[in-house]
Amino acid sequence: MEVRSQKMVIQLYDTTLRDGTQREGISLSVNDKLKIVRKLDELGVHYVEGGWPGSNPKDAEFFARVKGIQLEQAVITAFGSTRRADVLVQDDPNIRALLEAETRAVAIFGKSWDLHVIQVLGTTLEENLEMIADSVSYLKGRGREVIYDAEHFFDGYKADPAYALRTLQMAERAGAECLVLCDTNGGTLPSQLVAIIEEMKKVTSTPLGIHAHNDGDLAVANSLAAVQAGVVHVQGTINGYGERCGNANLCSIIPNLKLKLGHDCISDEQLRQLSSVSRYVSELANLAHDAHLPYVGHSAFVHKGGMHVNALVKCEESYQHVDPALVGNHKRVVVSELSGKSNIAYKIEEFGLDLSISPEQARQVLQQIKDLENRGFQFEGAEASLELLIRRTQPGYKPPFELIDFHVLVESRQGRGMLAEVAIKVRVGDEVTHTAAEGNGPVNALDLAVRKALLPFYPQLTEIHLTDYKVRILDSEAGTAAQVRVLIDSTWGSRTWSTVGSSTDIIEASWQALADSLEYGLLNGLGV
Amino acid sequence: MEVRSQKMVIQLYDTTLRDGTQREGISLSVNDKLKIVRKLDELGVHYVEGGWPGSNPKDAEFFARVKGIQLEQAVITAFGSTRRADVLVQDDPNIRALLEAETRAVAIFGKSWDLHVIQVLGTTLEENLEMIADSVSYLKGRGREVIYDAEHFFDGYKADPAYALRTLQMAERAGAECLVLCDTNGGTLPSQLVAIIEEMKKVTSTPLGIHAHNDGDLAVANSLAAVQAGVVHVQGTINGYGERCGNANLCSIIPNLKLKLGHDCISDEQLRQLSSVSRYVSELANLAHDAHLPYVGHSAFVHKGGMHVNALVKCEESYQHVDPALVGNHKRVVVSELSGKSNIAYKIEEFGLDLSISPEQARQVLQQIKDLENRGFQFEGAEASLELLIRRTQPGYKPPFELIDFHVLVESRQGRGMLAEVAIKVRVGDEVTHTAAEGNGPVNALDLAVRKALLPFYPQLTEIHLTDYKVRILDSEAGTAAQVRVLIDSTWGSRTWSTVGSSTDIIEASWQALADSLEYGLLNGLGV
Repeated sequence: MEVRSQKMVIQLYDTTLRDGTQREGISLSVNDKLKIVRKLDELGVHYVEGGWPGSNPKDAEFFARVKGIQLEQAVITAFGSTRRADVLVQDDPNIRALLEAETRAVAIFGKSWDLHVIQVLGTTLEENLEMIADSVSYLKGRGREVIYDAEHFFDGYKADPAYALRTLQMAERAGAECLVLCDTNGGTLPSQLVAIIEEMKKVTSTPLGIHAHNDGDLAVANSLAAVQAGVVHVQGTINGYGERCGNANLCSIIPNLKLKLGHDCISDEQLRQLSSVSRYVSELANLAHDAHLPYVGHSAFVHKGGMHVNALVKCEESYQHVDPALVGNHKRVVVSELSGKSNIAYKIEEFGLDLSISPEQARQVLQQIKDLENRGFQFEGAEASLELLIRRTQPGYKPPFELIDFHVLVESRQGRGMLAEVAIKVRVGDEVTHTAAEGNGPVNALDLAVRKALLPFYPQLTEIHLTDYKVRILDSEAGTAAQVRVLIDSTWGSRTWSTVGSSTDIIEASWQALADSLEYGLLNGLGV
Repeated sequence: MEVRSQKMVIQLYDTTLRDGTQREGISLSVNDKLKIVRKLDELGVHYVEGGWPGSNPKDAEFFARVKGIQLEQAVITAFGSTRRADVLVQDDPNIRALLEAETRAVAIFGKSWDLHVIQVLGTTLEENLEMIADSVSYLKGRGREVIYDAEHFFDGYKADPAYALRTLQMAERAGAECLVLCDTNGGTLPSQLVAIIEEMKKVTSTPLGIHAHNDGDLAVANSLAAVQAGVVHVQGTINGYGERCGNANLCSIIPNLKLKLGHDCISDEQLRQLSSVSRYVSELANLAHDAHLPYVGHSAFVHKGGMHVNALVKCEESYQHVDPALVGNHKRVVVSELSGKSNIAYKIEEFGLDLSISPEQARQVLQQIKDLENRGFQFEGAEASLELLIRRTQPGYKPPFELIDFHVLVESRQGRGMLAEVAIKVRVGDEVTHTAAEGNGPVNALDLAVRKALLPFYPQLTEIHLTDYKVRILDSEAGTAAQVRVLIDSTWGSRTWSTVGSSTDIIEASWQALADSLEYGLLNGLGV
């Protein structure tokens, strides 16, 4: 059963930064957007749609700043609509903003569906055709590569095929480089979509693109079916982020194109970055990474049932459709009883700790991990805390400092804003220091106070920085009395480490993670 | 572009209770399973696979208890494998457990892929054929309706078409009522799948079924393509729960079958239960309901961009592929920095607020939303805070209480554990109350203190509960000085509402969300 299609080069067009941000709950800062641009360029995406400069000032700022970034291959693209009805194209503020973005390529969308032209735009079918022609040729005349997005193309075609086709032809004659057929409402079935694309191929020679939404749970299937029907340009977003049920997920489309259909789009090396890019974007978008995402999810290659695990040991491909390493993922086995002791020995070696541990001690460490995980700690993402836990079980372990006590005061007094103040007492060797600091909130005040107390003993702490502070509510149904987990990332130069704390009191959980971060840095001679 | 397929009756086979529970993180009690059976029966599903009685005692208990439940139409089905190699079928414990489940129908899976037969089972290709024949005919002989699941059928066919076909023929000749082709590893493309089904139709007259997994993000597409190719029995799970990337999602398949392909499977009335069944199952499985699920997700018909909202007001179908009421869902409009004035007017009507707002006031509200979102607030998930924001712009608005000031003390004293204490001063009308409380962490103490202060004036507050408290760090690179967003969900009876706060100080952000929660409850007469 060979798939009957020739090997083609497919253009990948990412719209995470524009259509992706239409997802409920996403908001990306300009800095986040610029970071994502760099990642997408590394991944090998051909076009990155940066935003709609005519619609909001944040997107205009993005285009001003993105010019300063050196990219390998990604073409930054500005998005906008065709000119308004009854306005000269050169006077249309949206078209002007598109030009001012100064990108090599622009994508403009126009209406294909008579219902939208008449009822939504409130203009005539003829004027809409002029709007498309004017806008494409004006932008072409100013040296832009023009990608024409035919909004609602499939719905428009179902309603009035002749008119939908005329809108495409206007864009084609005006010089559009690519005609992107959009399933804007996401309800088209692959069989309908392919039939319409086949019709289009008879009447246009311009390269065709596909822009699919997932309202029928078919966005990836529609994108692949379009490629199998001859489309050469695929739009989508990382993790399928997008309005309503999302856009077509590039993290599924790319491996399907490369591994299943044999089409060229990104290199094998770039494909191995896919899982990491997927997690990176979810991190910046501040969304939990969906463990069940095809190819890139944490659970995509997990094996739970004993029978499957048993089969996998005999033969890797028995329950895996591809080798997870190809997309930078890995298989996991969830076993009820971990061979835990060898696990601890493995970790000691991995940490490079110069200590030997007896089987009995290993059992105790495991028990302690279990108890702490029951109380909300998690050591998977906090290996520095795990190293400290192991070290502390060793006889004669001496910590570089000890907390005696602290108090935190947060005040809101009429007209004075918030005040956060911490007093702290710590012991280093035989000396006790008692000091205080104010901060930007109680956790920041605690951070500043403990550093102030330790600095005379450990000046290297000025070189150690906290780079990430995450809070997760574990049993959120317990309301304000919920258990809280705090994860802190720290750095010194290129070295980074992560620590964890957990308590019903966020101040206490933060203290635990913070103290572990500093203790780990000091023990490992960092900062000097 | 009519879809070229005749109207057919499609059998729906739900395996949420068996394959669905293979998802990492799901575990259903027997009581939960029995509740889900009732719901699936009401929904009109034809077969409900209850579990694998030979594999664990919990599933055996389920089958004992499910006999006592009166069902409208769903056929409870027990699942198991063909007999083991070199064992008489009547002596096979798995086959005996299947019979002891005393269900009208049984589903048994057998191997189609030579690699599995030889490497995993460690038996011969001939013996595997005997195992299939023996098991099907033995169960048929005991009066069972036998559904034969051809595990890895598509992978097996790709490896050795003749052998895969022989396994199916053994099941057919032994009397299986339905031959279910399984894409067990989930990596088959619709085009491959359809080509293989077309081959099968030439050589068998027994009804065919499809069982798809989502490893290629194509499970729903594969299920629909199979139906379009003539398959009449579709297996899947509610919300697509299942191992790795999940099973085919019945909540997408059912409306696609009915609304897009016009096939009969459940009634229109039952289809209107779909969103509620989807939420019900996620609730019992103790998983957050995925808001972006097609058809049934909370965000499936949400509209964020100002242009889309503007169009929707003019014409409902402009940005919706189906009427959400058909699947028991509804459209929502959210307000964000991407919104326009029409969103605000829409919201005022949706909230049922008895106030008129001028275009200038709407502009001011939008500006305020934008400013607050810049400072980390987000109103999409906190509509009660949005309502308060709109109300507060009205001249003469009087809040039910006002904060004068508070202070929070968190202490860690040697050997005494943590202490969190709050003192608070609030004004209600002309009266000022000054009180204090201790709590389980500072936010809990604040919650208890403000309630203590307000209770004499508003005894109904004892009826208002916080059910969820979420914290999100927004710019986590700022370390402990990061901006924090707090979201609080509150309930009174079946009514729930959400509020938001944002600050670099988690105490202040929590206070804002908490105060909004109580103010909203009091203004809307809740708790009495």
